[in-house]
Amino acid sequence: MRILPVILIFLFLLACKPSYAQTTTLPQISVQGNKFVTSDGKTIVFRGLDTSDPDKVDRDKHWNKEYFQAMKSWGANVVRFPVHPNAWRKHGPENYLKLLDQGVQWATELGMYVIIDWHSIGNLRSELYQRGNYETTKKETFEFWRTMAQYYKGNTTVAMFELFNEPTVMGGAAGTCTWPQWKEIVEEMIVIIRANGSKAVPLVAGFNWAYDLTPVAQDLIMAEGIAYVSHPYPQKREKPWEPKWTADWGFVAKKYPVILTEIGFCGPDDKGAHVPVISDESYGDAITKYADENGISYTVWVFDPQWSPMLISDWQFTPTRQGRYFKSALQKYSQKESTLRSKK
Amino acid sequence: MRILPVILIFLFLLACKPSYAQTTTLPQISVQGNKFVTSDGKTIVFRGLDTSDPDKVDRDKHWNKEYFQAMKSWGANVVRFPVHPNAWRKHGPENYLKLLDQGVQWATELGMYVIIDWHSIGNLRSELYQRGNYETTKKETFEFWRTMAQYYKGNTTVAMFELFNEPTVMGGAAGTCTWPQWKEIVEEMIVIIRANGSKAVPLVAGFNWAYDLTPVAQDLIMAEGIAYVSHPYPQKREKPWEPKWTADWGFVAKKYPVILTEIGFCGPDDKGAHVPVISDESYGDAITKYADENGISYTVWVFDPQWSPMLISDWQFTPTRQGRYFKSALQKYSQKESTLRSKK
Amino acid sequence: MRILPVILIFLFLLACKPSYAQTTTLPQISVQGNKFVTSDGKTIVFRGLDTSDPDKVDRDKHWNKEYFQAMKSWGANVVRFPVHPNAWRKHGPENYLKLLDQGVQWATELGMYVIIDWHSIGNLRSELYQRGNYETTKKETFEFWRTMAQYYKGNTTVAMFELFNEPTVMGGAAGTCTWPQWKEIVEEMIVIIRANGSKAVPLVAGFNWAYDLTPVAQDLIMAEGIAYVSHPYPQKREKPWEPKWTADWGFVAKKYPVILTEIGFCGPDDKGAHVPVISDESYGDAITKYADENGISYTVWVFDPQWSPMLISDWQFTPTRQGRYFKSALQKYSQKESTLRSKK
Ligand SMILES: [Mg+2]
Ligand SMILES: [Mg+2]
Ligand SMILES: [Mg+2]
Ligand SMILES: [Mg+2]
Ligand SMILES: [Mg+2]
Repeated sequence: MRILPVILIFLFLLACKPSYAQTTTLPQISVQGNKFVTSDGKTIVFRGLDTSDPDKVDRDKHWNKEYFQAMKSWGANVVRFPVHPNAWRKHGPENYLKLLDQGVQWATELGMYVIIDWHSIGNLRSELYQRGNYETTKKETFEFWRTMAQYYKGNTTVAMFELFNEPTVMGGAAGTCTWPQWKEIVEEMIVIIRANGSKAVPLVAGFNWAYDLTPVAQDLIMAEGIAYVSHPYPQKREKPWEPKWTADWGFVAKKYPVILTEIGFCGPDDKGAHVPVISDESYGDAITKYADENGISYTVWVFDPQWSPMLISDWQFTPTRQGRYFKSALQKYSQKESTLRSKK
Repeated sequence: MRILPVILIFLFLLACKPSYAQTTTLPQISVQGNKFVTSDGKTIVFRGLDTSDPDKVDRDKHWNKEYFQAMKSWGANVVRFPVHPNAWRKHGPENYLKLLDQGVQWATELGMYVIIDWHSIGNLRSELYQRGNYETTKKETFEFWRTMAQYYKGNTTVAMFELFNEPTVMGGAAGTCTWPQWKEIVEEMIVIIRANGSKAVPLVAGFNWAYDLTPVAQDLIMAEGIAYVSHPYPQKREKPWEPKWTADWGFVAKKYPVILTEIGFCGPDDKGAHVPVISDESYGDAITKYADENGISYTVWVFDPQWSPMLISDWQFTPTRQGRYFKSALQKYSQKESTLRSKK
Repeated sequence: MRILPVILIFLFLLACKPSYAQTTTLPQISVQGNKFVTSDGKTIVFRGLDTSDPDKVDRDKHWNKEYFQAMKSWGANVVRFPVHPNAWRKHGPENYLKLLDQGVQWATELGMYVIIDWHSIGNLRSELYQRGNYETTKKETFEFWRTMAQYYKGNTTVAMFELFNEPTVMGGAAGTCTWPQWKEIVEEMIVIIRANGSKAVPLVAGFNWAYDLTPVAQDLIMAEGIAYVSHPYPQKREKPWEPKWTADWGFVAKKYPVILTEIGFCGPDDKGAHVPVISDESYGDAITKYADENGISYTVWVFDPQWSPMLISDWQFTPTRQGRYFKSALQKYSQKESTLRSKK
């Protein structure tokens, strides 16, 4: 017998929802064929920015509306929040949800969608990770998505749930995980999200630090209404990139929505330069052109002056080298859209 | 090499066994075909009562012989102790075993058998539960049964081990678990119990909060000497209940012993009323008739004035509405048995 | 994106490597057919001694060069360090590695190889163990080997990694584990060790407390360059032992290197006598003859005056009964080798 009805389980969480009402509501996002569409029937291609962990921005005293206004002014129509498991545990669900709520509210007010990203790196099957801040368990991961699904049910701004940032066995250094084993875990996450009432679009990545989607050609994730992810940083492959991108992940975009939730570059001598992100503007040209020609969405890593590759060099949001590149690229889309909208 | 012999492992537990001797010994219970039988060859059908968690009754200062005498006076020949994982952890094995020992001693003195029930609700495979007090792990569950098997080995009062109260994936909200996956876990528990020397009868439940045994028709638990469980609360199905009960779990009673370790009802306006327990005396009539006609055992939930559906409304053991119903029902069996016994 | 390069992960560990240089380097050990070979092409048969847990010897104030000199003087060409999971956790990696580093350094200076042994007993799949000091998890075990592989990469003294001391389901009392399930776990450990850059030879044991290798006849561990382990204590089988040893584990030595990482005996009235180690010198004769005739390596349990069966009766290294036996046996090999060397 159930001593208390199921509905009471997360009452303590629901009780801490912010009291101010959403001032606007964004159209519900869903998947149609290989497109993201809005509830009013329009195709939407996401181009936006990755925040650093809300916990980090908050410690830096910049988790505020100005931060979101800056991202909006760069042309973003979506922002991605990388929730690190250790930050989630440090705050606890109740407090971390307050941070997320603020971000979701500012994004809503500014007309930007939100991706919530469970920002771990490693082998979730064997529970071996690349570093301590990525440590989590299958159970914690499932419970995170149960909480997100229940808490943001009906919130249309929270459009996408990125199930696990960068799956990788690190060439065996983090143990073994076959694609069927990964699929089973991913499919259980999707069942949990949907059974808890959420309509957010699950975003699914493959191995090699979320670069590789080749197994999808033979062995799809068994779930409707999802999208696939790749993180095609410049040094994952040699130039010419395009044929390799098509073979490795781009082919998926013929049938399913694809979103590159991390792209970015910096010069070899820039602060924070490291494999696999070192490149130049030719990468920016190639990846944005490839994405645009194939209807692929993307968000650029990362709108923070310390984490790399940085898009900003200070909290006045001064663009870095890649910041200048992507600010200009994103603004062109939004100007075009504004023009289209004013012509109608 | 084993630094200490295996036999020393649980010495600390055995050392805390109560010093007073058992005043009587009940005949050993085992399974023969679809019946429970006693070591003297008689069929026994269990009709009894569920206590609330011994930890809860003890905190209420009523874990005493009077509590057991009251249950005996209602006609119970068995009592079921629902051990909540969080209560088990709170006390630790040594202290919780003291509570169990007291209950087992009083039950023995009064000639009632005991079911020890690992009272979790949820998906043990994925370790997602309905609420915090049901949280456990596969490892803790296995170790609980290892401890019970070693500690109550040879104690004939402790007749049955209910492996996991209410398995459920909550429609996916607690993840996924197939019947073969559940079977594998159940069969490992049974191996552990027997290899640690216990002859207690393992009680096995199916999904949908222990309601559904349909997979047993195709895919039996691979173990001899077990019994199956259902919790057919009134709102699990619409009237007429009987054909659905037969299809969902009653059919098992043709081949294996079945025990309904939780039945019960309350009116819609009674304290603690909740889905799926709301009904009236027609449910009592139906379920006791169905059980009796099919040789099915049962215990009624719950002999406590706060947990619901309550059988008593205070610690003077004043029966509630369902209390009046089941007190009368149970007393009829025991009077009949007394009559039979005095006629011999 | 990786916020820090992979190489930084274990920097804190590498930073605590001892500053004194290795004074000598032993030839790298690897596997060729059913032999251990050195990098200069010679076959090597290991005959040596088991220390007790470095943590234990250190608490006794004898984790020092004298301890290693004593083992060398007995004729050991290899020493095995049994790292108990609870000792590993008590110290933490950084501090436990300091103990290991000292032992590896003394062994190197004295020309003895080192086996690092993850000294658990039980069922790693279900995570049920024989006693509290053997408690670990699959994750902790994988992480132990990741740490060992990264830390001792390139150190040729640390020649062998014994993956899990004594696998056993304890006849079901520790749950269930099939050979294919055990193989999968073992193979993942080997992948982790190699992907983290180690050339140490993985040592693989079977069930029945590392006695039984019969499944290897049908279902090999899928990895090159490994060796198999047995712990054929005298009471595992009745005399005549030899045909049973051949059937149970000796047959493996026709194709793969075999090392008996625990052998030993004591008289029935000796301190610490327990099943399965009770026997006499006839066991010593049989097991050393069997090993020598089949090119099988071994280490004798245990060079400690408290753990049993003891090889020494005090910290002056006075041999016990089995100590006298094996000191003489080991010294004969090393004298023969010295003679061979001086004749060249
Ligand atoms: Mg219940
Ligand atoms: Mg990978
Ligand atoms: Mg041993
Ligand atoms: Mg269910
Ligand atoms: Mg990344």
